[in-house]
Amino acid sequence: MSKAGIIGASGYAGGEILRLLLNHPEVEITAATSKHNAGEYISRVHPNLKGYTNLKFTDETPMDVAAKVDILFLAVPHGSSVKITPQLVETGTRIIDMSADFRLKDSSQYPVWYGWEHPAPDLLQKFTYGMPELHRDEIRNSRLIAVPGCIASSSIYSLAPLAKSGLLTGITVIDAKIGSSGSGNKSTSATHFSERFNSVRIYSPSDHRHIGEIEQELSIAAAKRVTVTMSAHSVNMVRGILTTSSIFTEHRPAETDLWKAYRSMYRNEPFIRFMMDPNGLFRYPDPKLVIGSNFVDLGFAIDRHVNRVVAIGAIDNLIKGAAGNAIQSMNIMMGYPENAGLNSAPLRLV
Amino acid sequence: MSKAGIIGASGYAGGEILRLLLNHPEVEITAATSKHNAGEYISRVHPNLKGYTNLKFTDETPMDVAAKVDILFLAVPHGSSVKITPQLVETGTRIIDMSADFRLKDSSQYPVWYGWEHPAPDLLQKFTYGMPELHRDEIRNSRLIAVPGCIASSSIYSLAPLAKSGLLTGITVIDAKIGSSGSGNKSTSATHFSERFNSVRIYSPSDHRHIGEIEQELSIAAAKRVTVTMSAHSVNMVRGILTTSSIFTEHRPAETDLWKAYRSMYRNEPFIRFMMDPNGLFRYPDPKLVIGSNFVDLGFAIDRHVNRVVAIGAIDNLIKGAAGNAIQSMNIMMGYPENAGLNSAPLRLV
Amino acid sequence: MSKAGIIGASGYAGGEILRLLLNHPEVEITAATSKHNAGEYISRVHPNLKGYTNLKFTDETPMDVAAKVDILFLAVPHGSSVKITPQLVETGTRIIDMSADFRLKDSSQYPVWYGWEHPAPDLLQKFTYGMPELHRDEIRNSRLIAVPGCIASSSIYSLAPLAKSGLLTGITVIDAKIGSSGSGNKSTSATHFSERFNSVRIYSPSDHRHIGEIEQELSIAAAKRVTVTMSAHSVNMVRGILTTSSIFTEHRPAETDLWKAYRSMYRNEPFIRFMMDPNGLFRYPDPKLVIGSNFVDLGFAIDRHVNRVVAIGAIDNLIKGAAGNAIQSMNIMMGYPENAGLNSAPLRLV
Amino acid sequence: MSKAGIIGASGYAGGEILRLLLNHPEVEITAATSKHNAGEYISRVHPNLKGYTNLKFTDETPMDVAAKVDILFLAVPHGSSVKITPQLVETGTRIIDMSADFRLKDSSQYPVWYGWEHPAPDLLQKFTYGMPELHRDEIRNSRLIAVPGCIASSSIYSLAPLAKSGLLTGITVIDAKIGSSGSGNKSTSATHFSERFNSVRIYSPSDHRHIGEIEQELSIAAAKRVTVTMSAHSVNMVRGILTTSSIFTEHRPAETDLWKAYRSMYRNEPFIRFMMDPNGLFRYPDPKLVIGSNFVDLGFAIDRHVNRVVAIGAIDNLIKGAAGNAIQSMNIMMGYPENAGLNSAPLRLV
Repeated sequence: MSKAGIIGASGYAGGEILRLLLNHPEVEITAATSKHNAGEYISRVHPNLKGYTNLKFTDETPMDVAAKVDILFLAVPHGSSVKITPQLVETGTRIIDMSADFRLKDSSQYPVWYGWEHPAPDLLQKFTYGMPELHRDEIRNSRLIAVPGCIASSSIYSLAPLAKSGLLTGITVIDAKIGSSGSGNKSTSATHFSERFNSVRIYSPSDHRHIGEIEQELSIAAAKRVTVTMSAHSVNMVRGILTTSSIFTEHRPAETDLWKAYRSMYRNEPFIRFMMDPNGLFRYPDPKLVIGSNFVDLGFAIDRHVNRVVAIGAIDNLIKGAAGNAIQSMNIMMGYPENAGLNSAPLRLV
Repeated sequence: MSKAGIIGASGYAGGEILRLLLNHPEVEITAATSKHNAGEYISRVHPNLKGYTNLKFTDETPMDVAAKVDILFLAVPHGSSVKITPQLVETGTRIIDMSADFRLKDSSQYPVWYGWEHPAPDLLQKFTYGMPELHRDEIRNSRLIAVPGCIASSSIYSLAPLAKSGLLTGITVIDAKIGSSGSGNKSTSATHFSERFNSVRIYSPSDHRHIGEIEQELSIAAAKRVTVTMSAHSVNMVRGILTTSSIFTEHRPAETDLWKAYRSMYRNEPFIRFMMDPNGLFRYPDPKLVIGSNFVDLGFAIDRHVNRVVAIGAIDNLIKGAAGNAIQSMNIMMGYPENAGLNSAPLRLV
Repeated sequence: MSKAGIIGASGYAGGEILRLLLNHPEVEITAATSKHNAGEYISRVHPNLKGYTNLKFTDETPMDVAAKVDILFLAVPHGSSVKITPQLVETGTRIIDMSADFRLKDSSQYPVWYGWEHPAPDLLQKFTYGMPELHRDEIRNSRLIAVPGCIASSSIYSLAPLAKSGLLTGITVIDAKIGSSGSGNKSTSATHFSERFNSVRIYSPSDHRHIGEIEQELSIAAAKRVTVTMSAHSVNMVRGILTTSSIFTEHRPAETDLWKAYRSMYRNEPFIRFMMDPNGLFRYPDPKLVIGSNFVDLGFAIDRHVNRVVAIGAIDNLIKGAAGNAIQSMNIMMGYPENAGLNSAPLRLV
Repeated sequence: MSKAGIIGASGYAGGEILRLLLNHPEVEITAATSKHNAGEYISRVHPNLKGYTNLKFTDETPMDVAAKVDILFLAVPHGSSVKITPQLVETGTRIIDMSADFRLKDSSQYPVWYGWEHPAPDLLQKFTYGMPELHRDEIRNSRLIAVPGCIASSSIYSLAPLAKSGLLTGITVIDAKIGSSGSGNKSTSATHFSERFNSVRIYSPSDHRHIGEIEQELSIAAAKRVTVTMSAHSVNMVRGILTTSSIFTEHRPAETDLWKAYRSMYRNEPFIRFMMDPNGLFRYPDPKLVIGSNFVDLGFAIDRHVNRVVAIGAIDNLIKGAAGNAIQSMNIMMGYPENAGLNSAPLRLV
């Protein structure tokens, strides 16, 4: 049994890591920290976990936790991780960082997308972007993982095969729809139920921070510079993301070529499903069909009116968009079965 | 008092016309027909209207109704209207058609978007596209109105000022999110609550039928051929549409130029609001803020990453996207105050 | 035109009074105060009202406002009203108080239900309980109105006819289901969308504060002491209340007697509907069918297994449960048509 | 590995049995039948299961399936089971019946609650009511299980300890709130999303069929005749049940006595949790906190106004209210660990 610690375990990403690890056959949780909830039972904050653990949140420092665990999950806000990580890296403990602080390889992109200079640019190359389907071998040999962003995940999974096939030549536009859990557990007037229910809120019409990591990964897949842009909306649900991406092509691609692109990249992937059933009730990916699972569901359509491919991806933002990719990366890094702790089928009727 | 008749009054569009007309100071309802509900009290099918009318649905023919009313609303399915309208036109009664059958001016577009040859192409020029803000004078002089489609309305309102300003030079992509009422009252496995709740369903990734009328109207506004495409999604709500449109431009437009484009076109329009408040809780249009009203809320953003304008529109699909534009067109045609029967403020907290 | 002022106009009840008054033919709004939003346009806080008013919130004192209006609405928290009202009463201005501070006639009940001694017990007899259907004549002759609580309204409307008919002999149990808007606009972790969505939360299993006013009004109707108790739940919606009340009877009552009880009390009431259609889609009252209106929908069922009557009431909590009864009381008090400003039909499809 | 067959596997209960069995370490699915979907891949009807099975639905007869399996699940409608079960019982195969057809021990109760005479009254005594916490030893020695109804489960779990402690002396009233999945997958106008969303529908104000089995089980627990009644509502969600029960007592019970009653009955139960945290965010059971799990969450409150105990229960209707109790009963019957296949923690954020 490996020992795991979670820094910032009272948030939604932390809670989901806890839920998955409590069901993991090879890992035990040694520490779960929370500044605001230190001393409280975990199950008071995450009542779904009542009956699974008697652990309490602690106020141990990240260094204290690093000293006693094999794997350290950092579920702290963007910008906070980078303040503690350089010192933590020195300890040699494996680190899985949920924040954006080590996702971008090129330090010059931090001012562009996050508005601050990266204080530890040398570390950026030492972190591996924790997307197993694209970086499995690197993850296997890594001790430092930067877990991809949630909307970035759905976007990259949908678009990487097209990038690799050379189809992303113009500006690709991503339209994202996400549930409320993506914005965390801090209550504000904007997240007040009466204001948020039934709304379709375009919270980021442009310049979404995930564009940076999406372009990075798609450019790697394409072996050339790829440009994307995005508009992001929150919709009336808690879990789930759908991304609808428009790829403009010079000629209308053949459906078989698109299938080939997706299949050649994802053929044996345990957590990628193709959800395309033109005559079925569920013709395309829908976040409703992946909730509670580590799946990403993919599909595409070919526009007959203009030369456009529509690439569709659906994930549970808290699992494949956060804690699930973290655990899957951990499994690879530790040599465990890649699906250990991640086998739950989606709940269809939620 | 004018006399109005509604053919197909048991559906959702018909119910909304009934609700608005029952509150209209200048119109009385003379007939409301329904094949399936003939003989039933209207308020059994539309229980919200209990207390407002003791009318029953009848099975009168459209010709019978036309003979006794001043205005005839056709709330029948696409493809059904065109079968009865040529004869009805002969009567000289004013007709307001909710279907798509007379929206397109160019009969060659019906096979493209609807899959059938138009049987009465000569009538197409006699109908006026019932969008008061774009065709007020024509409506005033018309007796035949084709009410715009719901997603088309939100899209055209958002994009017409940019078309007129010459900004629509490339392919414009519309991403639409719509509530369930847009697909009518027929229950199927796809509309079964357990399957539809919490879903984000891309029901039309491309080739949506409203593209035809959107291109028609934007091309008129631009005085040149405009190309758009669309992906349409149903989301977890009943009423409302948000359209998010990506306009690719050669240079980054100035914000003041965009304001000028919108204001010059809509300055004195009673039912168009600009919803842009960068520091507010409600920064951009949101269908939640127009529910129950005839408003279209508009906003835009300028992408800093690529040369793109994001145009945002929100409407209540059953009002400004259907029955509201029908009544507003009727008011203009009949010489009534344009906002008669349409004054209700949105319900914010729904 | 009468002049109206609203103290505490930035909250949900205040916003609904504003919405209704802006549509009222006999009233103009002279002042709308808000401590936190003074100087802001009303439509920034209540964006649904954009286009209806250019008023700004002010920080005038209640006394300042009282000096210049004909009617003063107090939309301030429970316990705050009683601090300012005694002085306001001296001015002679008509007062319509949305809080609970003057609803109970017996000052000894304030410690029981609200936990504080009433500081102005003499004023309690001078206020009229603002439920037009039960106190129309008193309201007509009053200048001081205490608007009933929202759950209390649905409960009292459902039960008063049974009380008057002598059927409330045992303990009546009310089970209430309410939308989120009933708890106001203050965001907390409990109202955070991710926590509140999809929940069925029993926030008050017993000892709900509205029991006091319900017992008061039902005891008046019954002309003897009536005992009720309640469990109250919040459910997954924003507007609306359903109350389901169990009345235990000695014998099984005849259906005709129940109809007689309801009809004799409410026969000509403009805002009370009976929603009972055993063979219809909408067999009983449902808050979905009254949203946006001042209706209370009533129905009942007779239990065949035990001697029990089930009395069912549905209202829009912000209208018939708050602002609607306030305006209806104002209309009576001022001699306006009782339905002035209150004519909107419900929106069925929300 | 045991072999299991499911008759009627295309419905919601059948789909949930499939989901749980596909994750069960000791069972393999040998047959899943569906009249309407025979020949189709299971994952076309239950797309959440894509990736977990390549099985197709068959049209085998129940007798054919019985001949080749160790355990037969009957997920067929009420009234259908009883037509096939007598013959199936002859085969000696273990039967777990999801329908109501063998829940009641007293055949005279079928006409009362279901409206038909039971055609095989002798079989009623051979079936065990599949509620492990109340009938574990009987289940262990049984080959025939009748799985409890969903609302019945939440009610009985909440009330059995009070029945056993002699507190149920008067008429106990249950108020139930249930999600849409409880009414199955058949689409009707009443389940049409636009009609069902945001509604609070009292679909059974009295005479709910589950009263029969609730009284049966509580009378056993109390060792005397217990009387209950119920009003049942559907609310705006898909999964979950909350039952709020009012127990009228002669004296106010002490909180410690209530705790003793619950704890003595459920102390070591793996799937029963007490959810009472007066100072927490989650003070009482809420279906939101059990979704995806086999838990029943219990709590209670003591009314200070009248002598009443409020007993609160929350379950996932498809798991602890259906498929979960079926699997748990199977585990006991087969000698497997009782929680095999049932370990998933609830998803909190749904």
